[in-house]
Amino acid sequence: MGEFDVITRYFSSLGSGEFVDLSVGDDGAALTVPPNSELIVSTDSSVLDTHFTDDLFPEDLGYKAVASAASDLAAMGADPLGMTLALTMPTVDDLWLHGLSQGLARACHEYRLPLVGGDTTRGPLSLTLTVMGFCPPHQKLLRTGANVGDRVCVSGYLGDAAFGLQVMQGKYRGLEIDFDDQDYLVSRFTHPTARLDLGCRIRTLASSCIDLSDGLLRDAAHVANASGVRLAIQSAAIPLSSALIAAVGKEQALQFALNGGEDYELLFTLPPDVDVPSEVTVIGVVDEGMGVHCDVTARSQGYEHFH
Amino acid sequence: MGEFDVITRYFSSLGSGEFVDLSVGDDGAALTVPPNSELIVSTDSSVLDTHFTDDLFPEDLGYKAVASAASDLAAMGADPLGMTLALTMPTVDDLWLHGLSQGLARACHEYRLPLVGGDTTRGPLSLTLTVMGFCPPHQKLLRTGANVGDRVCVSGYLGDAAFGLQVMQGKYRGLEIDFDDQDYLVSRFTHPTARLDLGCRIRTLASSCIDLSDGLLRDAAHVANASGVRLAIQSAAIPLSSALIAAVGKEQALQFALNGGEDYELLFTLPPDVDVPSEVTVIGVVDEGMGVHCDVTARSQGYEHFH
Repeated sequence: MGEFDVITRYFSSLGSGEFVDLSVGDDGAALTVPPNSELIVSTDSSVLDTHFTDDLFPEDLGYKAVASAASDLAAMGADPLGMTLALTMPTVDDLWLHGLSQGLARACHEYRLPLVGGDTTRGPLSLTLTVMGFCPPHQKLLRTGANVGDRVCVSGYLGDAAFGLQVMQGKYRGLEIDFDDQDYLVSRFTHPTARLDLGCRIRTLASSCIDLSDGLLRDAAHVANASGVRLAIQSAAIPLSSALIAAVGKEQALQFALNGGEDYELLFTLPPDVDVPSEVTVIGVVDEGMGVHCDVTARSQGYEHFH
Repeated sequence: MGEFDVITRYFSSLGSGEFVDLSVGDDGAALTVPPNSELIVSTDSSVLDTHFTDDLFPEDLGYKAVASAASDLAAMGADPLGMTLALTMPTVDDLWLHGLSQGLARACHEYRLPLVGGDTTRGPLSLTLTVMGFCPPHQKLLRTGANVGDRVCVSGYLGDAAFGLQVMQGKYRGLEIDFDDQDYLVSRFTHPTARLDLGCRIRTLASSCIDLSDGLLRDAAHVANASGVRLAIQSAAIPLSSALIAAVGKEQALQFALNGGEDYELLFTLPPDVDVPSEVTVIGVVDEGMGVHCDVTARSQGYEHFH
């Protein structure tokens, strides 16, 4: 693995943080989990040709890998602690590694997730991130816990990332899209926002939570199934960005929101007596029953899933 | 990822343990780190054709992946807490997965490392394990810390695994090796022993520690460099199994011990006033200077590295 020592140059500067006692360079890293907290942990792989293609800039790959992993911490209501990276790559390409490290560094910094360890190996390109966070016991947010009468809420705008991916793939070349809008929509795919701050704010308020990685309808179904309830979603209430509506119209924008993936926004349920936090939209209610009901569900069948 | 749901069948039974509050099935797992402990974490990847070939039984692959990752916890002096697995594979092969899960289950149980989460994705075969442990603050074992006058110690017998690999690869077909010896030697490669109990026992005694994954000389050099000392090793003191000596003779056995990898024994340094624990061999002393000195170092140059 001699030549892989070069990695140290790119990654060892990302390893310091408030809770880090020992970072990259020994057999393991050491972190302090604050008192009266549970450790929250999640692992996510990004594999070439399964999760991304080789035309994704390494900066974007690095940023997006961290943000999507951090999003799982957000969905649990956890504060960030640190992460490890297992990087497998066919050759050591300095320019590519420089780009990757820039993207990782930006996300490490933004999400307060120091890179404390990992493994670099030769093989087909993939990144596996294990993110660690902490949360007071009994406050972690689960998919179970949604109760009849709760409101269904989401953060941000949905569907932008799925459409942004299609723009990147050249599927909308005929469409005239405002330059700034296009930039914004693509960036929602390449630079999703993990809602760590929101996750922490709602952990004493929400009854259940999940992050939207597979599309609103699918992820809402996970909450419904885990909680043994039905989530009734009003399509008219789903937050859509003006950029997405301007690009494809409201009807198709809605389909991206319902079925597109990789938004990395939070979907959560709020008991009736709790104020709705800022930057959050109520899109439905929790009913008795099972599964997800949405007034436009049936029309989505003809659409492909975009991930 | 629909078809990958089948994985739940194989792995979800491995996720319970003393410190596990929430296992596989939500956005993250939740673990309790005991009070007055640091979290110790390490990540290890095993990639097809880089770390193993496809003639390794899936049982062996699963066991070995956990044991080699757990060995990093042992080298830090950590008690085991839990682990996550990122499994990437080209297709869902039930028979293969059944074998893998058997090997994982055996190692999970032996090393008290419940499988609390992970990710299953499609792509070229690889396993990435992130193991978590805990240790009282200031007791974790580092590569730094070896002092002049300390004794250099190792656990177990060295070189068996490297020779066992060569036997598996058919490189010793001409050699007559006792059947039980051959079985033992191959098993040292396929089923290495992570020295978690020893690591915990010596964490208040040893001044430095590392696990032997890359061969005695290389790993000893890591300790020497990190501690700013010289490790002087007496070849005659290196523990060799009677099986390895019977198979290839003492001289070649020694070369396997010095340069072969994947022993997953512990190398550590003990201050002069500390009793040597049982099952441990003193193989040298810590001197002023740098690097590793061994009376047969020079003769090893002509040998290939076996990993």
